[in-house]
Amino acid sequence: MSLSKIFIENNIEKTLTEFLNAHQFSQIAIIVDENTKEFCYPLLKGFLPTHFLISVKSGEVEKNLNTCTHIWNEMTAHALDRKSLVINLGGGVIGDMGGFCASTYKRGVAFVQIPTTLLSMVDASVGGKLGIDFEGFKNHIGVFNHPLAVFIDPIFLKTLDSRELRSGFAEVIKHSLIADYEHWKFLKIKDLSSLDWLSVIKHSINIKSAVVDQDPNENGLRKILNFGHTIGHAIESHFLEIPNKRLLHGEAIAIGMIAEAWIAMKKGFITTDECKEISNYILTTFEKLHIENDEIKQIIPLTLQDKKNQNGEVQFALLEAIGRGNYEQGVSEKEMIEALNYYNSIN
Amino acid sequence: MSLSKIFIENNIEKTLTEFLNAHQFSQIAIIVDENTKEFCYPLLKGFLPTHFLISVKSGEVEKNLNTCTHIWNEMTAHALDRKSLVINLGGGVIGDMGGFCASTYKRGVAFVQIPTTLLSMVDASVGGKLGIDFEGFKNHIGVFNHPLAVFIDPIFLKTLDSRELRSGFAEVIKHSLIADYEHWKFLKIKDLSSLDWLSVIKHSINIKSAVVDQDPNENGLRKILNFGHTIGHAIESHFLEIPNKRLLHGEAIAIGMIAEAWIAMKKGFITTDECKEISNYILTTFEKLHIENDEIKQIIPLTLQDKKNQNGEVQFALLEAIGRGNYEQGVSEKEMIEALNYYNSIN
Repeated sequence: MSLSKIFIENNIEKTLTEFLNAHQFSQIAIIVDENTKEFCYPLLKGFLPTHFLISVKSGEVEKNLNTCTHIWNEMTAHALDRKSLVINLGGGVIGDMGGFCASTYKRGVAFVQIPTTLLSMVDASVGGKLGIDFEGFKNHIGVFNHPLAVFIDPIFLKTLDSRELRSGFAEVIKHSLIADYEHWKFLKIKDLSSLDWLSVIKHSINIKSAVVDQDPNENGLRKILNFGHTIGHAIESHFLEIPNKRLLHGEAIAIGMIAEAWIAMKKGFITTDECKEISNYILTTFEKLHIENDEIKQIIPLTLQDKKNQNGEVQFALLEAIGRGNYEQGVSEKEMIEALNYYNSIN
Repeated sequence: MSLSKIFIENNIEKTLTEFLNAHQFSQIAIIVDENTKEFCYPLLKGFLPTHFLISVKSGEVEKNLNTCTHIWNEMTAHALDRKSLVINLGGGVIGDMGGFCASTYKRGVAFVQIPTTLLSMVDASVGGKLGIDFEGFKNHIGVFNHPLAVFIDPIFLKTLDSRELRSGFAEVIKHSLIADYEHWKFLKIKDLSSLDWLSVIKHSINIKSAVVDQDPNENGLRKILNFGHTIGHAIESHFLEIPNKRLLHGEAIAIGMIAEAWIAMKKGFITTDECKEISNYILTTFEKLHIENDEIKQIIPLTLQDKKNQNGEVQFALLEAIGRGNYEQGVSEKEMIEALNYYNSIN
């Protein structure tokens, strides 16, 4: 498995131009949504060689087979060949779906990721997980494949509203919780607006890359990256169907991390104080929701479809301590319900 | 890239049972069409452990995204997990599409191929090319991925009609033409009905495997396997849309090999006599068609969509001699038209 070259610099014009000059692509297609077309594409347009745009609608609900069909049709209409390059300019949806389409068009053309959200900078653009949602299940259809390169420039963060920025910050918190106690302490005393993003992003990506490099196909260690995601994904999937309650990925993961910290506490991995410390810190950044009992009943079965499951048992990534994740922890339905009740009970 | 274990034996009960015993699959799904369900599945049913069937309609026209959606839905409905096995029981359509669905469901579950046609035994089950047709373009969407194993048992050839058997034989002829002059001489003096299929299949697979092993991602040498396929695929695609003129893959490739042998002759790679020798032998096995001028005009543009193209030029695999293929031979539209006129002119 070839891993990608990751450029983290405040100067995408330089890094991307050098990269394109070093390769000989026959054509360049750029996948954008209406937001990245308006706010991010103008930051590249001036220095890019000849290219064409493939536009899709923004949002997780568009990350499906219909949109892939549109993308494949556009690639076909432009007679994109195997020596072409696809540039995915956007957040996790564009990166995952555009990467999947590039990886499957004519059995694979080269692609690079230009993540434009904090979430996709620290998470989606590293690790080679590509795919789309299917019948309500997140990332149900996809492949493992690596972009030729990832270009991260914090300039794109200026195009985000504060809700989007916070959503991405959930993954920064997660990386510290599963792998770096010192960074957890550092984050706790900082305000979001006072952070040096280039350094925070580098740190977060280093954690993720180190984990992925050791276990690219998610046979073991890589599963710790799923902390907060088993319950978080189920919550995200559930609310995806309810337009006025739809959550951003990181907002759902924030709830998942609190619930799963509680489970880690119940299993004796972390103390009650550590569980409270995690909950309190997350709730300084993320708005508290109330999840109705009826909703909890609908959310729990969604965890059964999680790709981490084996033999019908729900397998969680939890915390061994603050700063150290573990994985393959069997969790019962009852524990999940109690964990969400705990989340509801805090304030 | 891990290549597959290939079992070529007259005893699939033994090879498949040993394989399943050596692995621990949580579930087994078998993809069948109405033909393999009726004629091939009964040969396995008696000795297989617990499993379920996913049924699709037979035929190249079914090798599309709609059928994939059906397969993915069935996998989801049975809560197939990542430790499951998918068995593709059928010809090239089932193997290519079932392999693609398995490779993309939850970013990949294990699969094995049990090819039931001669074509899929000697061709489709070796080499890791998976995919589906899209908007009239053959194998336009897909991935490179290898099955855990391939089980080849000539017992399934008894389930085929003679047209299907001949179709597969086109690939046997191709393998000899591109890589084995001695085998070409051997085939020429044999009648189809007097062949020892186990030995012919082994020989053909050895040629293909040797080529694929040297160039798994089709950057160079592997392209020789496309001999007959640039024009052949275009012909197959064209007639796919005309129900009463639809051709089997090998029937289209037979025409493609004659046309492309003529181009090799025009370029001075083979002699006029060798071109005639190839044409005459192929026409002892395959029925002669007449391709109308109007049809030729529609067929030629379809070669432009071939995955082998770069920078808009149509790149062919041709013959350097009988028994030796070459590749990346630029061919003009005029040469293609003349080649199909040559095909029309012989009798």
